[in-house]
Amino acid sequence: MMRPPAEIGIPTDEIETPALILDLDAFERNLARLADSARDLGVRLRPHAKSHKCPVIARRQVALGAVGVCCQTVGEAEAMVMGGVDDVLVTNEVVDRVKVNRLVSLAKQAHVAVCADDAGNAETLNEAAAAFGTRLDVLVEVNVGANRCGVEPGKLALALAEAIAALPNLNFAGLQAYHGGAQHIRDFTERRSAALSAAEKAGATKALIEGAGLSCERITGAGTGTYRFEPESGIYDEIQAGSYIFMDADYGRNLDEGGAAVSDFEHSLHILATVLSRPDPGRCVVNAGLKALSVDSGMPLVDGDEGVLYVGASDEHGKIDFGKSNRGFDPGQRVRLVPGHCDPTVNLYDWIVGYRKNRVEALWPVAARGAF
Amino acid sequence: MMRPPAEIGIPTDEIETPALILDLDAFERNLARLADSARDLGVRLRPHAKSHKCPVIARRQVALGAVGVCCQTVGEAEAMVMGGVDDVLVTNEVVDRVKVNRLVSLAKQAHVAVCADDAGNAETLNEAAAAFGTRLDVLVEVNVGANRCGVEPGKLALALAEAIAALPNLNFAGLQAYHGGAQHIRDFTERRSAALSAAEKAGATKALIEGAGLSCERITGAGTGTYRFEPESGIYDEIQAGSYIFMDADYGRNLDEGGAAVSDFEHSLHILATVLSRPDPGRCVVNAGLKALSVDSGMPLVDGDEGVLYVGASDEHGKIDFGKSNRGFDPGQRVRLVPGHCDPTVNLYDWIVGYRKNRVEALWPVAARGAF
Repeated sequence: MMRPPAEIGIPTDEIETPALILDLDAFERNLARLADSARDLGVRLRPHAKSHKCPVIARRQVALGAVGVCCQTVGEAEAMVMGGVDDVLVTNEVVDRVKVNRLVSLAKQAHVAVCADDAGNAETLNEAAAAFGTRLDVLVEVNVGANRCGVEPGKLALALAEAIAALPNLNFAGLQAYHGGAQHIRDFTERRSAALSAAEKAGATKALIEGAGLSCERITGAGTGTYRFEPESGIYDEIQAGSYIFMDADYGRNLDEGGAAVSDFEHSLHILATVLSRPDPGRCVVNAGLKALSVDSGMPLVDGDEGVLYVGASDEHGKIDFGKSNRGFDPGQRVRLVPGHCDPTVNLYDWIVGYRKNRVEALWPVAARGAF
Repeated sequence: MMRPPAEIGIPTDEIETPALILDLDAFERNLARLADSARDLGVRLRPHAKSHKCPVIARRQVALGAVGVCCQTVGEAEAMVMGGVDDVLVTNEVVDRVKVNRLVSLAKQAHVAVCADDAGNAETLNEAAAAFGTRLDVLVEVNVGANRCGVEPGKLALALAEAIAALPNLNFAGLQAYHGGAQHIRDFTERRSAALSAAEKAGATKALIEGAGLSCERITGAGTGTYRFEPESGIYDEIQAGSYIFMDADYGRNLDEGGAAVSDFEHSLHILATVLSRPDPGRCVVNAGLKALSVDSGMPLVDGDEGVLYVGASDEHGKIDFGKSNRGFDPGQRVRLVPGHCDPTVNLYDWIVGYRKNRVEALWPVAARGAF
């Protein structure tokens, strides 16, 4: 793990760059807003820890009422449990034999659940649970529109639920019904309709399973783009939003009912970069490129000025064009960038530097960085 | 730092995934090929360590004749010096005050040089060198076509060289003349011509500087795409290729003189992934997505079959389409992926797992992972 880029108590303009910095006031408002919304919507909140990979943040979420967290890998789940979170759902399939062992072992230390979409995998999980002398909660992942992992809704999901329920060391624990593709549909009505279509598929599958005499104790899913919609259906018990604590540029392009940019959450997370060079008056180069931010969902935004554009990233450099803006940055000046996509960006850093106003207040280890 | 995904001596099919795996035979052939070429071309080799971030690999390069390495950040330079490399050129501007101090301090422990493209920055470097009681080698970075950092060739470069030479604790140590944009020009003739145009600009600038009575001891630059061309000019003293040891999919799309894919180097580096799900006969999902590989320069290739395509990455998942291939992968099967772009991919891992034939032989820490 690299040294932290700051010390507690220093002014933010002394943070070494590039650094991942978190506006604690904005972050805390985001935390509270989704906790309040979940309460209003009548669903449990199980935020996704793949966005922050930081047990300190997970515990803040639990303190505000979250029932636990979601993880995407066994390594993340280990980091969360070691960091004080006692209820983790791995919203993914776990297949490698060593990872299955790690997962089952972890289930002896905390409440751990996992997803499956294949009967052979369920048998592997069962054998490992038996070998460790434990029982494991397994949810059936249903393809509700993302076309990634997951069995098709309906009979195939029922067959897998029955197969899981029949295995002595597994509990059938419900349905994982996350529609990843719906999260970034820009138009409000289309996004809502995709989420409600996911809910319909999940609900019909639950009815089929319960009709066959199995209890289906929860349906879990939803994300930062759709968390308001799935609960409308009355079908979802749990929402899994993750990015809401940070809000990235990509989520910021979603539109609300009136066609304006969504405003549920604030951009609390930035990459703090330093200008290395201003080769000509119209542009500059900063020290934050592909190893400091992820460009898979578009370029980062330059905070505070829509006319100044981050136009291209190479390994360690970002090119910024001042366009028609009156602003220009000289070598040594600091620039705050809103990440294009927060999850893979956070995974590039060992530390989140929390600040309030202009003073560094917290250094939080990204404990699950690189935790496959 | 995460635990390694393997143990020395185990078969490769027991490596935990996703993992960054290195075919040591292919890697060693790549190492030797560029070392031999540099000798034949009559230039020094100073490979770029930003590609591997691994002092073990850097020392292998030095053992085959490299004069030292290039780094892109102070953190990388520290990792290289601590790891046993005693000659490092930072091919970048260093601006943050703390980083300038770290750089100058490092110059008391090893031969360290840095680039500048701004007289104010040169003064900062000089003050720090004076404070630490040392002298620092500074190269003028010249914009030879990349339009990133660097002063324009000619008079502006001369003025900066003179400014550096006039500062008591700096040595003017030559020209950094790297044409990043030329590296991935697919056509052989166009790529060569871009490299030779860079050489012409660097050469003219050197002549101007020497005409003014300053010695310009080296011109350094070139990369894996152009290393054969800059030396033709007779102008370059040193080549800086980095990716040649691994060869990624992007470099693999460059064409040789006859219009075929370049064959100077072999794909030695792969991401080893596991199939998590095969939701339908025509496709599968592997456990290597945006946190396991960089997609900035295109998707990774599925090793061994051009008909099988990695078609999309989300945070922890990769979608593979079997297309018209006869192959199909079931859950638990392993897939080797050629990274689209090696540098930011390596930066996602703590360990490089070296293997020969089917046995794990080496675990090398990526010591400068995340070293800004």
